[in-house]
Amino acid sequence: MTTLEDYLEKNTDRIDRVIHRYFGDVHGDLFRASAHLLLAGGKRLRPAVVILAADAVRKGNSDDLIPAALALELTHNFTLIHDDIMDGDAARRGVPTVHTVWDEPTAILAGDVLYAKAFEFICLSDAGEAAKIRAVKMLARTCAEICEGQSMDMAFERRDDVSEAEYLEMVSKKTGVLYGASAAIGGILAGATPVQADALYLFGVNSGVAFQIQDDLIDLLASTEKSGKDRASDIREGKQTLIAIKAREKGIDLAPYRRALTGAEIDDLIARLQDAGIAEEVRAVAVERAGVAKQALSVLQDSEEKRLLAEIADYFIARGN
Amino acid sequence: MTTLEDYLEKNTDRIDRVIHRYFGDVHGDLFRASAHLLLAGGKRLRPAVVILAADAVRKGNSDDLIPAALALELTHNFTLIHDDIMDGDAARRGVPTVHTVWDEPTAILAGDVLYAKAFEFICLSDAGEAAKIRAVKMLARTCAEICEGQSMDMAFERRDDVSEAEYLEMVSKKTGVLYGASAAIGGILAGATPVQADALYLFGVNSGVAFQIQDDLIDLLASTEKSGKDRASDIREGKQTLIAIKAREKGIDLAPYRRALTGAEIDDLIARLQDAGIAEEVRAVAVERAGVAKQALSVLQDSEEKRLLAEIADYFIARGN
Repeated sequence: MTTLEDYLEKNTDRIDRVIHRYFGDVHGDLFRASAHLLLAGGKRLRPAVVILAADAVRKGNSDDLIPAALALELTHNFTLIHDDIMDGDAARRGVPTVHTVWDEPTAILAGDVLYAKAFEFICLSDAGEAAKIRAVKMLARTCAEICEGQSMDMAFERRDDVSEAEYLEMVSKKTGVLYGASAAIGGILAGATPVQADALYLFGVNSGVAFQIQDDLIDLLASTEKSGKDRASDIREGKQTLIAIKAREKGIDLAPYRRALTGAEIDDLIARLQDAGIAEEVRAVAVERAGVAKQALSVLQDSEEKRLLAEIADYFIARGN
Repeated sequence: MTTLEDYLEKNTDRIDRVIHRYFGDVHGDLFRASAHLLLAGGKRLRPAVVILAADAVRKGNSDDLIPAALALELTHNFTLIHDDIMDGDAARRGVPTVHTVWDEPTAILAGDVLYAKAFEFICLSDAGEAAKIRAVKMLARTCAEICEGQSMDMAFERRDDVSEAEYLEMVSKKTGVLYGASAAIGGILAGATPVQADALYLFGVNSGVAFQIQDDLIDLLASTEKSGKDRASDIREGKQTLIAIKAREKGIDLAPYRRALTGAEIDDLIARLQDAGIAEEVRAVAVERAGVAKQALSVLQDSEEKRLLAEIADYFIARGN
């Protein structure tokens, strides 16, 4: 029985090889800028979801769908390059961001190039024409929704009255739908029925939302060594996370924490949030979403791949613990 | 017999109606930003080429392909929004640019939304699945090439040794390939054979190159009232146009003209360039490209639409005269 860890490791190797084949030796500033973040690594979780979803629908030769798996990784990377410009972030995956190494115009174009390649690679998969058209449509709608999610996220930074429902809509669009599309596109290209494809989409969206909520918890609770990120950076930046929203609802004012914080101050803040039961409540939302994700898989026949998909949902909320 | 002028006017009305239906009443900053430039007008030449190419291949109900025609207009507008950010341009089509009305992050996302919609609308056309996949592939490759063209254009601004061949490659990518894709996609969705699709692509690319060269001539020679642009702006900005390249080859130094110029100074410069035969030589390149474009159409059966396509190539090099 393959463990999820082994599966993901093999998947990363396989996707990395394909990425190096297509993007490892490109010429010119623009194409090197496009390849920069892709070549900096990453867990390749979206490609894993594409392939697992396909294999959960029909046991086949998943090599046929490697181009589609790559397409979802390219889509993810295009959004990262553009988001980094908008957010003014200087580093990601341990390397300087594209607009930092080159410049903003090159980074805009580098993202645009990956965007095009994503659609091209969907078409290069070995699948039926009608299925590919369904996949292209889904990818296109997903990209528009991701833009909407990023736009909401930026608008939230200028507000202090974001509701839990608004937050969940934003996270669903910014993070959820790309996992939804990964699972559904994998299924569709493998011949999923509409019911199966809808279930896979639901699985992916909810897994992605759970992933993002867990990410917010990691930002607050995980040690810096473990997460590789500055602890409590969301609170220092006044981000409207589920943690911040629930704190506000319970009368805890996070505004005084929008500044450089010492380790002791962060520990005190965490203790206050724990005492108010906030971390636990936020955690419960992530667990619930992972549960909805796994429940959605029930329309699929039992298989090793179905089990691994369910384990991915659990893994998403176990990270950083 | 329909004149090209009448045809283009009817086409503009038709495409404008569709644009208003889809983008006239959208909500939220992001979608209004996406619609801004689209609703500001435009000649809708690429949609006209899509429909004419389709009807030159098979006389059919061209309403089937309106979504694909719109897709090419959306692609054009997405590139304009991103280009305006990169070039720092404040106005286009008589309205402030998207990043000027909103901000750069919103403009990046607004372009990204239209990019997605372009692929979605290709899929919404009423055509065979295999043809749609060919069209999606072509659009994807075209978008990557347009990015390359814009990247070359920006790099050329930092050089003063650009060759004619490099200029023609840049223009072919930045302007030509989208006309090539418009013609080829129209043909493909209407059931063109590979030979016909290739011919239509060749027609479009060469028409587009001719269009751009004529644009450079208009910038220099046309009166401001006629072109709506500042005369000789390319020379003031030191742009590497075919005019600048040929001037350099003939020993005319344009560097002293990279500053604010009086009308008399521009008139003197034009006279110098005319005396050296430069405007005439540049004009000859545009005429030659339009000729190659029209020649490419010879594989198609004679029809009203074939005649109108040929007239478009002539119209592209007649503008501003």
